Amino acid sequence: MLKSLEKILPKEFFVYFGDTAHVPYGNKSADAISCYSRNIVDFFLGLNAKAVVIACNTASAVAFQELRKSYNIPLFDVVEPSVVHSNYISKTRKIGVIGTHSTVHSKAYTRSLLALNSDCSVVEIACPLFVPLIEEGWSDTSVAKEVALTYLKAFQGTEMDTLILGCTHYPIMAETIQRAVDNHVLLVYSGETVGSKLLAYLEENNCKNDSTLPGETRFYVTDFPQKFDELGSRFLGRKMEHVEYITLR
Amino acid sequence: MLKSLEKILPKEFFVYFGDTAHVPYGNKSADAISCYSRNIVDFFLGLNAKAVVIACNTASAVAFQELRKSYNIPLFDVVEPSVVHSNYISKTRKIGVIGTHSTVHSKAYTRSLLALNSDCSVVEIACPLFVPLIEEGWSDTSVAKEVALTYLKAFQGTEMDTLILGCTHYPIMAETIQRAVDNHVLLVYSGETVGSKLLAYLEENNCKNDSTLPGETRFYVTDFPQKFDELGSRFLGRKMEHVEYITLR
Repeated sequence: MLKSLEKILPKEFFVYFGDTAHVPYGNKSADAISCYSRNIVDFFLGLNAKAVVIACNTASAVAFQELRKSYNIPLFDVVEPSVVHSNYISKTRKIGVIGTHSTVHSKAYTRSLLALNSDCSVVEIACPLFVPLIEEGWSDTSVAKEVALTYLKAFQGTEMDTLILGCTHYPIMAETIQRAVDNHVLLVYSGETVGSKLLAYLEENNCKNDSTLPGETRFYVTDFPQKFDELGSRFLGRKMEHVEYITLR
Repeated sequence: MLKSLEKILPKEFFVYFGDTAHVPYGNKSADAISCYSRNIVDFFLGLNAKAVVIACNTASAVAFQELRKSYNIPLFDVVEPSVVHSNYISKTRKIGVIGTHSTVHSKAYTRSLLALNSDCSVVEIACPLFVPLIEEGWSDTSVAKEVALTYLKAFQGTEMDTLILGCTHYPIMAETIQRAVDNHVLLVYSGETVGSKLLAYLEENNCKNDSTLPGETRFYVTDFPQKFDELGSRFLGRKMEHVEYITLR
């Protein structure tokens, strides 16, 4: 997600907040996810952020609607842009969504897709083992392939032509996921769709950073797990710098 | 673990504290695990508990030595009893340990085994995918078998005759683990070894509950995940009752 945003907006100053004390959010309750999300948005308010991306599908699916009502700061979720894009590219109107238990249980994607186009039919499947497989570096193993086939066979026989990767971890495992569904199925990546939306917002509101200098990214985390650097590098494709530890109430 | 303790001490009043807001501990830092563990022991002190079992191998491996220095309350860890038992039953003096990243990284088992018997040779292997597989109910699948074979092949060629299941989740997956190692290898379950030690302590100190009434167990959790009941029942073999939500600072 961050990698996509940095690519689309190379001059911006990004602050990444990783709630490593509470991850994975995918198996937490809606109440807990809402509480953590509010604390994090408050933190960004304290930094005078010009926009906040809820760059976690679980938090977007479970807490975004409530956050939007409570805050005046421009908030971007990662559900809606993928929903709009999927509705645009799907020809069969059969759209699949994969995500964590909490994301799928919230039915946020189904609600959002049907609100946009009541002709859609949506199948959401929880794939809770994908996150640990990705975090352990097992994305391309025969184990990951079998897990993917087991989860995704639920889409067999549907005419799904579009599959939303409804978790920021999943793009790392995209090849294995693609091989487990028909090869004409288009995968939708939220990093790209959110990036386009954020870019449009910043341009429309004349608040895009037009500096001639490159942007910068700082990281704040609520825990420093032993494998943090390894994991961060796997997602970013580079070493993380400027990482600070912080506790929220 | 709780199931074993209830069986060995059927008259006792147990209070189970599940830090569901922060699990899994296995990928958290030593500092975070120590902090959470102190908060939980403080909670038990407030309840006037007569003994506290650190019923998590990661917390035991990472935080127990420090907790023991800070508290006067009788504290029991889940590392030492399995170490003593393994040293007793192993004939080849080659002992294996499987656990989370944090447990294995701490080297607590190796230190403890060598302190008891410098003739031992110990191999510790992190099996981080076992916990999510167990939590998802995949313990007996072909996926779990392949994951177990992949991790445990590190023991091939050693003369290991004893394998410590160094995570309270692993007994659920014991059959799959046993099939992935030589069939003469003895598995050591911390629930049983800790139960015997706790029983001996309560008897020696005349504080075992000798009521004619059966005991009772209450549960406190820091989050109520959606699948909490299902998961709890899988471990306990019964429905959990008397569950309360609590936040620690």
